[in-house]
Amino acid sequence: MAQEVTVVAKEKAESRAVGLRFAKIDAFAKVTAESEYGPDIELPGMLVGKILRSPFPHAKILRIDTSKAKSLPGVRAVLTGDDIPVKYTFNYAERQTGTKIVEEGKSEESALRGLMPPPRADKYPLARGKVLFVGDEMAAVAAIDEDTALRALSLIEVEYEPLPALFDPEDALKPGAPLIHEDFKDNMAAHLKGDWGDVEKAFKESDQIFEDSFSTQHQHQACLETHGCVCKWDVDGSLTMWSGVQTPHTIRLEFSKVLGIPESKIRLVSKWVGGAFGSKNELEPFMIICAQLAKTARAPVSLILTREEEFAASGCRHPYKVTVRTGLKKTGEIQAREVKFVVDKGAYMAQGAAVAFFAICYPSASLYKPKAVRFDAKIVYTNKQPPSAYRGFGNPQATFAIESQMDMIAERLGLDPVKFRILNANRPGDITAHGFRMPKSTGLIECIERATKAINWYEKKANRVPNRGLGLACLIHSTGERGAYGDIEGSSCTLKVNDDGSATLFVGTQDLGTGAWTVLAQICSEELGVRFEDIKVIGGDSDLPAFDLGAYASRSTFTGGNAVRIAAVKMKEQIFSLASELLGVPESELDIKNSEVFSKNKPGVKTSLYNVAKYAYYGAGKPKNLITTGIFDTPSTLMDPETGMWKEPGPSIAYTFACHAVEVEVNPETGKVKVLEIAAAHDVGKVINPTTAEGQIEGAALHGLGYAISEDLRIDRGVTVVKDFRDYFIPRASDMPKIDVIFVEMNDPNGPFGAKGIAEPALVPVAPAVANAVYDATRARVRNLPLTAEKVLGEMMRTKK
Amino acid sequence: MAQEVTVVAKEKAESRAVGLRFAKIDAFAKVTAESEYGPDIELPGMLVGKILRSPFPHAKILRIDTSKAKSLPGVRAVLTGDDIPVKYTFNYAERQTGTKIVEEGKSEESALRGLMPPPRADKYPLARGKVLFVGDEMAAVAAIDEDTALRALSLIEVEYEPLPALFDPEDALKPGAPLIHEDFKDNMAAHLKGDWGDVEKAFKESDQIFEDSFSTQHQHQACLETHGCVCKWDVDGSLTMWSGVQTPHTIRLEFSKVLGIPESKIRLVSKWVGGAFGSKNELEPFMIICAQLAKTARAPVSLILTREEEFAASGCRHPYKVTVRTGLKKTGEIQAREVKFVVDKGAYMAQGAAVAFFAICYPSASLYKPKAVRFDAKIVYTNKQPPSAYRGFGNPQATFAIESQMDMIAERLGLDPVKFRILNANRPGDITAHGFRMPKSTGLIECIERATKAINWYEKKANRVPNRGLGLACLIHSTGERGAYGDIEGSSCTLKVNDDGSATLFVGTQDLGTGAWTVLAQICSEELGVRFEDIKVIGGDSDLPAFDLGAYASRSTFTGGNAVRIAAVKMKEQIFSLASELLGVPESELDIKNSEVFSKNKPGVKTSLYNVAKYAYYGAGKPKNLITTGIFDTPSTLMDPETGMWKEPGPSIAYTFACHAVEVEVNPETGKVKVLEIAAAHDVGKVINPTTAEGQIEGAALHGLGYAISEDLRIDRGVTVVKDFRDYFIPRASDMPKIDVIFVEMNDPNGPFGAKGIAEPALVPVAPAVANAVYDATRARVRNLPLTAEKVLGEMMRTKK
Repeated sequence: MAQEVTVVAKEKAESRAVGLRFAKIDAFAKVTAESEYGPDIELPGMLVGKILRSPFPHAKILRIDTSKAKSLPGVRAVLTGDDIPVKYTFNYAERQTGTKIVEEGKSEESALRGLMPPPRADKYPLARGKVLFVGDEMAAVAAIDEDTALRALSLIEVEYEPLPALFDPEDALKPGAPLIHEDFKDNMAAHLKGDWGDVEKAFKESDQIFEDSFSTQHQHQACLETHGCVCKWDVDGSLTMWSGVQTPHTIRLEFSKVLGIPESKIRLVSKWVGGAFGSKNELEPFMIICAQLAKTARAPVSLILTREEEFAASGCRHPYKVTVRTGLKKTGEIQAREVKFVVDKGAYMAQGAAVAFFAICYPSASLYKPKAVRFDAKIVYTNKQPPSAYRGFGNPQATFAIESQMDMIAERLGLDPVKFRILNANRPGDITAHGFRMPKSTGLIECIERATKAINWYEKKANRVPNRGLGLACLIHSTGERGAYGDIEGSSCTLKVNDDGSATLFVGTQDLGTGAWTVLAQICSEELGVRFEDIKVIGGDSDLPAFDLGAYASRSTFTGGNAVRIAAVKMKEQIFSLASELLGVPESELDIKNSEVFSKNKPGVKTSLYNVAKYAYYGAGKPKNLITTGIFDTPSTLMDPETGMWKEPGPSIAYTFACHAVEVEVNPETGKVKVLEIAAAHDVGKVINPTTAEGQIEGAALHGLGYAISEDLRIDRGVTVVKDFRDYFIPRASDMPKIDVIFVEMNDPNGPFGAKGIAEPALVPVAPAVANAVYDATRARVRNLPLTAEKVLGEMMRTKK
Repeated sequence: MAQEVTVVAKEKAESRAVGLRFAKIDAFAKVTAESEYGPDIELPGMLVGKILRSPFPHAKILRIDTSKAKSLPGVRAVLTGDDIPVKYTFNYAERQTGTKIVEEGKSEESALRGLMPPPRADKYPLARGKVLFVGDEMAAVAAIDEDTALRALSLIEVEYEPLPALFDPEDALKPGAPLIHEDFKDNMAAHLKGDWGDVEKAFKESDQIFEDSFSTQHQHQACLETHGCVCKWDVDGSLTMWSGVQTPHTIRLEFSKVLGIPESKIRLVSKWVGGAFGSKNELEPFMIICAQLAKTARAPVSLILTREEEFAASGCRHPYKVTVRTGLKKTGEIQAREVKFVVDKGAYMAQGAAVAFFAICYPSASLYKPKAVRFDAKIVYTNKQPPSAYRGFGNPQATFAIESQMDMIAERLGLDPVKFRILNANRPGDITAHGFRMPKSTGLIECIERATKAINWYEKKANRVPNRGLGLACLIHSTGERGAYGDIEGSSCTLKVNDDGSATLFVGTQDLGTGAWTVLAQICSEELGVRFEDIKVIGGDSDLPAFDLGAYASRSTFTGGNAVRIAAVKMKEQIFSLASELLGVPESELDIKNSEVFSKNKPGVKTSLYNVAKYAYYGAGKPKNLITTGIFDTPSTLMDPETGMWKEPGPSIAYTFACHAVEVEVNPETGKVKVLEIAAAHDVGKVINPTTAEGQIEGAALHGLGYAISEDLRIDRGVTVVKDFRDYFIPRASDMPKIDVIFVEMNDPNGPFGAKGIAEPALVPVAPAVANAVYDATRARVRNLPLTAEKVLGEMMRTKK
């Protein structure tokens, strides 16, 4: 299924690790069900926690009576809003943590000053005064078993006064609309607005200007493991939480503010994660509730969301209304671009502004090269469940609009959509309107060429089959993102060579099932020269001697991998120093491969790493330390708050590029879209492990296919009507089209062995590529995701009229 | 109760940590029973393991039939000797691990060449062919519960042919005695024999020569937590063992040889230890059996010894027969000493030779300063349970003999026993007959002076009370001991400053309940300037980024403490570098105290460590690593195998000295000894925590009191008749005499803040001091421990005749 451009055979013979198809290091534990996920934790005396949720989209709470619930035998704690009277920012409270804030005791102006709103607290863990969406957390209980907990929930009496509710962000913006949060006077959670470059001039210099509008739906992460946690307080007042999350260190940072205890008094254990995709990025209300239940009940509490709660009150992707206005020269060069977003934020802010800003910075301003960019993003409260971070982080919504419009423009101007994109593609060294420098590893054009070649683009175009069509779409995505949490984009690790010459790697990097730890072990093996199978990775615990901002923004391989590489380089110095004593040759003459240290000059002068380790631990006669640390912070930059622009290189120093070319067949009777083939060409830099990289791309492409044609978390007048997987249509294995994974290995000079990010990208270009292919097959341009049979057929009928 | 010479008030005001009486960091967890000891571990599907033990002291195994046991429902594994056919050295297999061994594939000559025998395998985990003591491991089962396991044991049929058994080492040495191990032709497990200095000449130059003989009994560690472990094999073929032990890293090293898997495939978790005292120092047969049961049953197995098994088949102190021959000048100066030991080794070798060698090197050759020393130690197999390492490690047996004889000699020569000891005491800079250099911190004379003063020695001697007597005895003990495991006497740790400015210390050092981790946290606090309460210590896990040989030889504070101090010094460099950026002053101008960094020159220029940490983690804009490591190896030396002598400074570079002066009252009718007061003056270097140090000394003194007068693990014709605490008389709280703890803080230049070892010493001088006091009260010289009423009365009656 996959095509590779990497040549690894030679290296394999030398047992080097990068580029080889090792099985994931957690494969055995997972297939034998030895991997213990959050809900599998059993602690003595552990209680079951349950949450009572609002049945109204918007209502005043007139009265809560928990007395009956409290007196039910077996109930150990009942909480309402007044028990946790901490209003918090739900998610990105600490995003702007710089020392200056702390020093001066006031909120520092944002690194995105003038653009990003300061974080404002808008959420109580349990509602106080009002409920704002169907599913809003109202009360909670901890009891000796699930039945008792559910019975206790049913005994909590709440008297509501329903209030007029808002379900459409444009309704919410109308003057006189009811207010969802009284302190947000126009229901506007945030408004990002600005120009990069001389937008007026750029539009004036355009020969043609096109404006088109698009919209996208709620999509849900639909992780196999629902959200949940186990909380236990220790006698010293510290909290341990077991929960599968993406960001143990930053969740703990936010948690400490809410709980009012130091960060280090919270230990977050997250060894196994049953899917995340952005939904396990942040401190969630259920975590705070569970911690408080455990504190009140003086016992460990397990709180696991049901599938119904998971769909109705956790995660999901922000729906966008997008208007793109593009000015071009007759010959096709893009001059100016304006994007307008209206974002359905639901009841609470979470990362709404950050997600919108990413959509502005990347697809809108960086995928091609407009000379000037204007943006206007309204993030609007509604009485619906609040969307979260989600694989792609705003990129899928905007790329759907932009890449759909690119095809529409190409047709209007009579341009070949492939050549039109190549014409406007960024090249190495280009600087965007907002100051991002395109690195040496910029391979977008190569991706376009490779994807269209793989799918036989021109041949198929020349030999058209009825009801079939071809489409393509491109992508740019960051590899990490400076500014998410203060002025850092870093990761650290500790490396130990054990007394048997094996290595243990303590990492801050999370592995969400992506293979991140496998890749880190390969990087360690490659750099250190230790056999891959002799490396043990220990991670997923905030108490380890390691730190990482989290597994988001496709950053783990790049940032964590560089940290590992640095630790390995330092370790080699130690090893060579010891081996030099043992072998009697200078350190400079030594190399290590396959756990054997040898002289590069004198054949046969060698010793095993086992011997070196034994010497260090038991024989050297003086201190020899086989523990090293590695820390890496990308040399990226924050936006200059004065200009709103970046100085080189920008918030990410490496970018992943991709082009997907797809072929679809549309049933002319029903409008049903069948994707026949996806040629996915990805410039991900050096591929550390082709198998896991293919897995990421294939999985993400299928994930994107769901976004394109079937997934829709329908919310009807505030009620999430999707309750389980019978209602929510993620693609199944049988829906899998042929996927050609094509690696364009534009090795990045800053990446570990040239690697760049890989996790999110392949989801993004699928929907516009499919929409473009459907148009190619049918002349029906669907501007609203997903491309259900009904919508495609409707558009086909409208077009035929 | 305690007298202190430390002045800490001034330091307390500055929140420095060394010398302050902090509560143990594990106190809360222990008093609330949150601390989970080995037997408290519960794993899903865990089985119960039980061992069938030999009822004969010496017998041939003619037949074993396990078929009935195997067919009992609920039985998952039944093992006999043939299932683990690995003969191993029981204990100190890897003591001589140097790289050369590994490189050349042959056993390197011992560092104690010519003296210590090479390690020889003499033990199967489960007996094969013969059983050698009552309690020897014969077979084992794992079953779904304890009842089933016990029933299965009863169904194992064994046919024995009893053989003549040996219970006295002198019988075992007689020509023609039956052989216990066929490959040890004279039942001699080891024979250490040698001279340091010109012994013949030194005796010739003596005016008087005295020879006296003594003997000591079996004492048992009687830990509140019996031995036990839980073993679980992971799907990747690695073993995790939970067991309270003193030496996770070195046990794992030995375990790997027996199991034939790499060291790092064994994880040993030992967070809590319910008493050890040397008995949890080594890889024990029950651990190997448990691991094999878990492997065979494919399920975790818990194997916990009963109290009866604990007394009959684990640990205990070697009984010694000691003959001391001492040559002196008329004026009292010791010229020559010869010691002869006959050690009852029981059925297996374990650490018998090392224990005897310690008794030779320290009390025999170093407590006073004979110019020449001759030793002859016969370590002899008998058909009894094999003694183990035990607090003091040979020192109690030899010191009882030597210090008893010192009083006997003083009386014969008409010398004051106090002045006689001071005359012969080592002073700073002295070199012993075998080459140990007495360090600057040698405070034996001060201890003698302080102890006798505290008990009003001369006043009481002048105003004698009938039936009361005074006695004293001195001690020298090592602080760590190079040569136990190859050429190393080291420890390492990793230190992390967290994002809230607190610190986490990952240590290899074990805390056996001694307060070792509390002391390490204090050393870290003192050196790093971080508040004590902000330091978390994580230890007791071989998978941590830290290493330590183990908690034995009174080495933890010295070796682990120095490692911590080194890590803290490195961390301060990182902190000052960051704070220098924040505060705009040079690093050299900065200091840190109480978690605040400040300019030493400019008052008011300061910032909290919280701010520095936040800056490092979120604001510095470039990599800043707050993880450091510390490794320390004492600059001690191995014996020169050519000369059998040490070059300076010797195997330990710091020594603990003590003098105990005791007052006893002896019931003239019954001979019952009541100890009224112990004045315990200890030169332990700088006292890091007076409360835990007093606890060590008070506990050890009471422990020594049990050795002196009541504890005797009676073994009658091979059968340990002590079954539980009704039969074994450890002192109770009500037996506690007045104990004056006197710290003589001879700060050692190599110790962390001057600290030396403290754990073992106070046990050692109690027995001879009591024996001397009993003589002073009654003229009855008891030469055989313990000083039971029967023995004292018998000796009194003999003396009166």
